[in-house]
Amino acid sequence: MPSRRTARVGDLTLGGGAPIVLQSMTNTDPRDAEATAAQALALAEAGCDMVRIAVPDLDAAAATREVRRRLGRLPLVADVHYDHRVAVAVAPYVDKIRLNPGTLRGRAALDDVAKALRDHGTALRIGANSGSLPPGFEAPPHLLPTRLCDAVADWVARFEDAGCEDLVVSVKATSTTATLAACREAARRFDHPLHIGLTEAGTARTGAIRSAAILGALLAEGVGDTIRVSLAGDPIEEVRVGQEILRSLGLRPEADRVLACPTCGRARMDVAVVAATVEAALGTRRGTRTVAVMGCEVNGPGEARHADMAIVGTRDGAAFYRGGKVVLQGTADEALKALIAALDDGIPAHD
Amino acid sequence: MPSRRTARVGDLTLGGGAPIVLQSMTNTDPRDAEATAAQALALAEAGCDMVRIAVPDLDAAAATREVRRRLGRLPLVADVHYDHRVAVAVAPYVDKIRLNPGTLRGRAALDDVAKALRDHGTALRIGANSGSLPPGFEAPPHLLPTRLCDAVADWVARFEDAGCEDLVVSVKATSTTATLAACREAARRFDHPLHIGLTEAGTARTGAIRSAAILGALLAEGVGDTIRVSLAGDPIEEVRVGQEILRSLGLRPEADRVLACPTCGRARMDVAVVAATVEAALGTRRGTRTVAVMGCEVNGPGEARHADMAIVGTRDGAAFYRGGKVVLQGTADEALKALIAALDDGIPAHD
Repeated sequence: MPSRRTARVGDLTLGGGAPIVLQSMTNTDPRDAEATAAQALALAEAGCDMVRIAVPDLDAAAATREVRRRLGRLPLVADVHYDHRVAVAVAPYVDKIRLNPGTLRGRAALDDVAKALRDHGTALRIGANSGSLPPGFEAPPHLLPTRLCDAVADWVARFEDAGCEDLVVSVKATSTTATLAACREAARRFDHPLHIGLTEAGTARTGAIRSAAILGALLAEGVGDTIRVSLAGDPIEEVRVGQEILRSLGLRPEADRVLACPTCGRARMDVAVVAATVEAALGTRRGTRTVAVMGCEVNGPGEARHADMAIVGTRDGAAFYRGGKVVLQGTADEALKALIAALDDGIPAHD
Repeated sequence: MPSRRTARVGDLTLGGGAPIVLQSMTNTDPRDAEATAAQALALAEAGCDMVRIAVPDLDAAAATREVRRRLGRLPLVADVHYDHRVAVAVAPYVDKIRLNPGTLRGRAALDDVAKALRDHGTALRIGANSGSLPPGFEAPPHLLPTRLCDAVADWVARFEDAGCEDLVVSVKATSTTATLAACREAARRFDHPLHIGLTEAGTARTGAIRSAAILGALLAEGVGDTIRVSLAGDPIEEVRVGQEILRSLGLRPEADRVLACPTCGRARMDVAVVAATVEAALGTRRGTRTVAVMGCEVNGPGEARHADMAIVGTRDGAAFYRGGKVVLQGTADEALKALIAALDDGIPAHD
């Protein structure tokens, strides 16, 4: 059930069955336009479709004008809290503004923001978070999903009444199970594009796993039109994790990838080391080649036949496969060298 | 749709709505009973419910007797390929044997294995993999999910005819989307407990994300009774990732956990470093405490009120919260020291 409505965000379309949009957020000083634009471009290069910037004050809003200039048409989003004047000031320079019903209030303030959105064709995400529910919407845990959606519904009605059309909604909680329930309820209650993600997901390691489990579950149900993986750390890692989630579900084309067997008592070489070396050698290459690294003869030859290249542990060392056929038998090091040389040849997939 | 039948594996019940069983696999030399048993115990200590061992030959089968002796009642599974005599030899010492229809054939061989399973009350997992489909079941990619299930169905019929009752099934492919489709088809076609996982998922980093996305999707649909996360690397990491997936979906009680905000331009301290320090300090403590690490005042105070302890970045440094209230204001280092001291006090959750 992708959303029935769409929202236009710069050159992107969110919702209505469009490809899932991957976002991330800069963590540079938002008053430093040069650093912020550089990080935004690095995120785009890594595969991020839409970049969000925290815009905490009017100085940052002014700096966003220069960020916009440096980014060209890269879809840009401003995250604004507390001060509606910041949203009004930044509206000309961004494609979407994210506001939280829990951190901005007052009828006059909303009217000013709505006018700025209309004047500049800027989209709006109305995003409620469990950590900042507006007064009157607080809830015991079992009602949290519904109250998050209620807070969003209240603002959707206000902004639609004010003539704003490109609306996106989100409901996030630190509890993974509450987030699942809230997003499913939002998908039923709203026909607007839905932004999904876990808020405060955790360290890079555990946050990636939690996000993949919950976003995987939601996306497989058809819930969600745009995702962000929130990790404490380098936002480039957020993009990598987000891409891997989308690829796993067949929602984004595969890049070159490494299949590696999990290693067990049968492994005849150090699969983890060989696989990590191959993954590093692939680097940021774009393509659709599959490289299999398999420890032994149980599934090794079968996987090697289906992969573009493979290294399979054997009784005597390792075999290097290319196009499904053994082309070298030797030590694991020799097989690895042959494989990396073949990668550098730039041979196309399924040669 | 949890399976309607159950399978008994030692003291565990798989399927029929029982808690999802988490497994992993040793990667020691299976002929080295001391090392294998030590790793199996370490896996159990980390939260693994059932430990699998590769048993490639009769020497390894003999060593498994000693592994069994050292493990007591820890549920133990043997992974056997090619030689049915190994399955017969190891049946007395393990609670389940995993066989692959693609690596074992012959009517007489299956009859011998079935007799050993019956004689010793040993369960059987019939597990087909895309890398080793039996002759006659090969398939073009779009038919792979069905042909994997067909290969399993063929063996289910044979072993049920031979009087074996504790059967578990699995269908795995290196393609994540084929695995999703195959597991959904298996859940429809079989009423036996279903083991789910990606085969050859990849390096520890990407394999964890792919596994979480696919297992998260399946478990959220109610598909799967036991999981393994296959990673090239330390199997302890497989257990950590598997637990995190189950916890994310509310399928396993939470341990102490760290919530961390993703950091953005607003962060007033290095959230990633503080969060990683707290996660390391929690270590393997079992409990249900939530520690929030939040960079700024937007969602910080709200999350801190709901967490057992928290560090929130402020304009002047950081605040340490306990039980929802600020108990210290100082530098981020001072707040971190106070938090770690409070952890070491062993105060209970929601004190």
